Amino acid sequence: MTARNAFYAQSGGVTAVINATACGLIQAARRHPDRIGKVFAGRDGIIGALTEDLIDTSCESDAAIAALRHTPGGAFGSCRYKLKGIDQHRAQYERLIEVFRAHDIGYFFYNGGNDSMDTAWKVSQIAGALGYPLTCVGIPKTVDNDLPHTDCCPGFGSVAKYVATSIREAGYDVASMARTSTKIFVLEVMGRHAGWITAACGLASEGAGEPPHILLFPEIPFEPERFLARVDECVRRYGYCTVAVSEGLCDAGGRLIADSGSRDAFGHAQLGGVGQVVAQLIKDKLGHKYHWALADYLQRSARHLASRTDVEQAYALGVAAVDLALQGKNAVMATIRRLADAPYRWEIGEAPLAEVANVERKMPREFISDDGFHITAACRTYLQPLIDGEDPPPYRNGLPDYVRMRGSAVKKKLGTYTI
Amino acid sequence: MTARNAFYAQSGGVTAVINATACGLIQAARRHPDRIGKVFAGRDGIIGALTEDLIDTSCESDAAIAALRHTPGGAFGSCRYKLKGIDQHRAQYERLIEVFRAHDIGYFFYNGGNDSMDTAWKVSQIAGALGYPLTCVGIPKTVDNDLPHTDCCPGFGSVAKYVATSIREAGYDVASMARTSTKIFVLEVMGRHAGWITAACGLASEGAGEPPHILLFPEIPFEPERFLARVDECVRRYGYCTVAVSEGLCDAGGRLIADSGSRDAFGHAQLGGVGQVVAQLIKDKLGHKYHWALADYLQRSARHLASRTDVEQAYALGVAAVDLALQGKNAVMATIRRLADAPYRWEIGEAPLAEVANVERKMPREFISDDGFHITAACRTYLQPLIDGEDPPPYRNGLPDYVRMRGSAVKKKLGTYTI
Repeated sequence: MTARNAFYAQSGGVTAVINATACGLIQAARRHPDRIGKVFAGRDGIIGALTEDLIDTSCESDAAIAALRHTPGGAFGSCRYKLKGIDQHRAQYERLIEVFRAHDIGYFFYNGGNDSMDTAWKVSQIAGALGYPLTCVGIPKTVDNDLPHTDCCPGFGSVAKYVATSIREAGYDVASMARTSTKIFVLEVMGRHAGWITAACGLASEGAGEPPHILLFPEIPFEPERFLARVDECVRRYGYCTVAVSEGLCDAGGRLIADSGSRDAFGHAQLGGVGQVVAQLIKDKLGHKYHWALADYLQRSARHLASRTDVEQAYALGVAAVDLALQGKNAVMATIRRLADAPYRWEIGEAPLAEVANVERKMPREFISDDGFHITAACRTYLQPLIDGEDPPPYRNGLPDYVRMRGSAVKKKLGTYTI
Repeated sequence: MTARNAFYAQSGGVTAVINATACGLIQAARRHPDRIGKVFAGRDGIIGALTEDLIDTSCESDAAIAALRHTPGGAFGSCRYKLKGIDQHRAQYERLIEVFRAHDIGYFFYNGGNDSMDTAWKVSQIAGALGYPLTCVGIPKTVDNDLPHTDCCPGFGSVAKYVATSIREAGYDVASMARTSTKIFVLEVMGRHAGWITAACGLASEGAGEPPHILLFPEIPFEPERFLARVDECVRRYGYCTVAVSEGLCDAGGRLIADSGSRDAFGHAQLGGVGQVVAQLIKDKLGHKYHWALADYLQRSARHLASRTDVEQAYALGVAAVDLALQGKNAVMATIRRLADAPYRWEIGEAPLAEVANVERKMPREFISDDGFHITAACRTYLQPLIDGEDPPPYRNGLPDYVRMRGSAVKKKLGTYTI
């Protein structure tokens, strides 16, 4: 069997561990020189494929590839660029195949979330329609943890560990200050439509009265009066109150509590600021001094505090994608299958891309307490193993020592293409 | 010599390592039962002394006290409560001495920043005037790093490590996204009047083009046009731009760029939001999509990422305070003396409280680059050792395992006192 090249791209918002997947994938590919020639990475994701801007990962040393395992962000660049439907924009898909053909690419690995799995599925379809032999494998990645058919999504566990740690630590701080100063602390976290990250904050509350006291989920319509009553109760009982709020918090009419009004390339609203809205509401109505934090990119890039479980799964999925491809599995996504909760046991599985694409996994309602302000025991059982273990990066000069790729471009063979 | 009891209080904003100082102090005191009876901690700082609300630390186990070394926040509670001048409020000082007399307190340890050193000095004065034998020792603590006569202030090194790590990590993230999405990332950090924390962000930039690209110091008046030109230059050159901005950024007229209008108990303006103001300015004028983060309490409570140097100094200062007191040194603050930059060597020193009280150490102008947007080599030489080394806490269930004190109250001997 002749070796063919592979294409790998990172898509959408990056995470603390997406490079661990790249590491696993490239290391696995290097173990199969008889089947896989070079791994070409798309510079800035799928845009790199469209514009024939490919990075030759064979120019990266083994040490540099190994260091990807502990480096956050997307080492080859990512993008927010969603290919339209095949009917609408068939030329783009044909261009992809043209580039793949020019560089003898027989394997297409796409590392992303819902939108990306949809793209990967469409690419597999068009390759089939054009009679171009291509094995397409999706690899899950999203801090939103909202892909179906997998126990969890790489990136989420590390965000979960970060936000739970952060609100625990801030809780110790505000508890100290509450007598004469700050009584309220609000942490705004990511999660547009699903409250997985908000729920993860709840892991920090292991005993009665432990922060966070209140979680505000995007799934539960915000009722100011009921919320304020709970805040008041916490302050009376514990002397202070800590709140974790999802950026996607909505009112009963489905309107975002804070919407900056601008939208990203996928048409999603760009959020931010609900933490301050909620904190200011408390100040206005109850008179308590507040502090609030906006974790933003810090939460999804905090490789220094990654979950070891998350890193291991991200790496294993990269390896598994190569295995699946070499088994000739096409149009599938590598998945995590949970075998046991505690101690947590998992294995690699697979799911058809057609069943994954554009399906969003919501938080089960039974993961949220009846009053809507916290997580249930079932939720804790699900989440707990995902934050387990530490995997600190090496440090140099007191700071995490991360790697940057050389990013050597593959020589172009086709004419210019404008997207 | 008869053993007398000691009083210890934490004051002002807490840090990731103030409890390491408490740990060192209490452990050292326990080694001298012939000289020091019990260590009573003020519940919620000096308020605990005024209201005779004392915590008997002898009720805390050795293990619990040891765990303070890795626990953030103020384990006994802190407060923002500044005693007025002796002439204005002599009764409060006399009350303190009355409480100390009732509980045979011969040692007064005050762990705080500028305001606290002023209070400690005044307490030493009033004790002398009243003929009450009391040894007063101040112990520095402030993330603002603005106390004089000490190489640095415990708490700062860990914030420095956290903010530098955070902006490095976020820089890896935004670099990945810049092609089609976020090009600008702004991190707002603490530091009302001195740019030490802002400067620390600069440590992450070890090579040309490495984040953060721009630092906005409280010492340098904000000039929007010049700032925007630099942002534009960064985006053109690197594809993105990362900015660290101090909460205390001012315009040429000394007005805060973002001032929420409310003030804390010391009359300081309560800040927050300048990060978004600066980011939105970039969006409005240059059109780039931005993300911004507000680290707030996360930066000063992030014990999980503490600087080992900072923890060691905080602990050593607690031990040193006991040593100084037992040597009969009164009205002094324990300090850190730098002996060498690299490798960093330091020893414990002392400074008269009278020379420390209310003096604010500013960033030297030569620590800021000529253009005002970054740090100099001299600044790097000063800061580098302060973030050196890691000292991770123990983890349980995937999260840092911190301790809470039992907080057993000492039986009151005096009548009620209202502050």
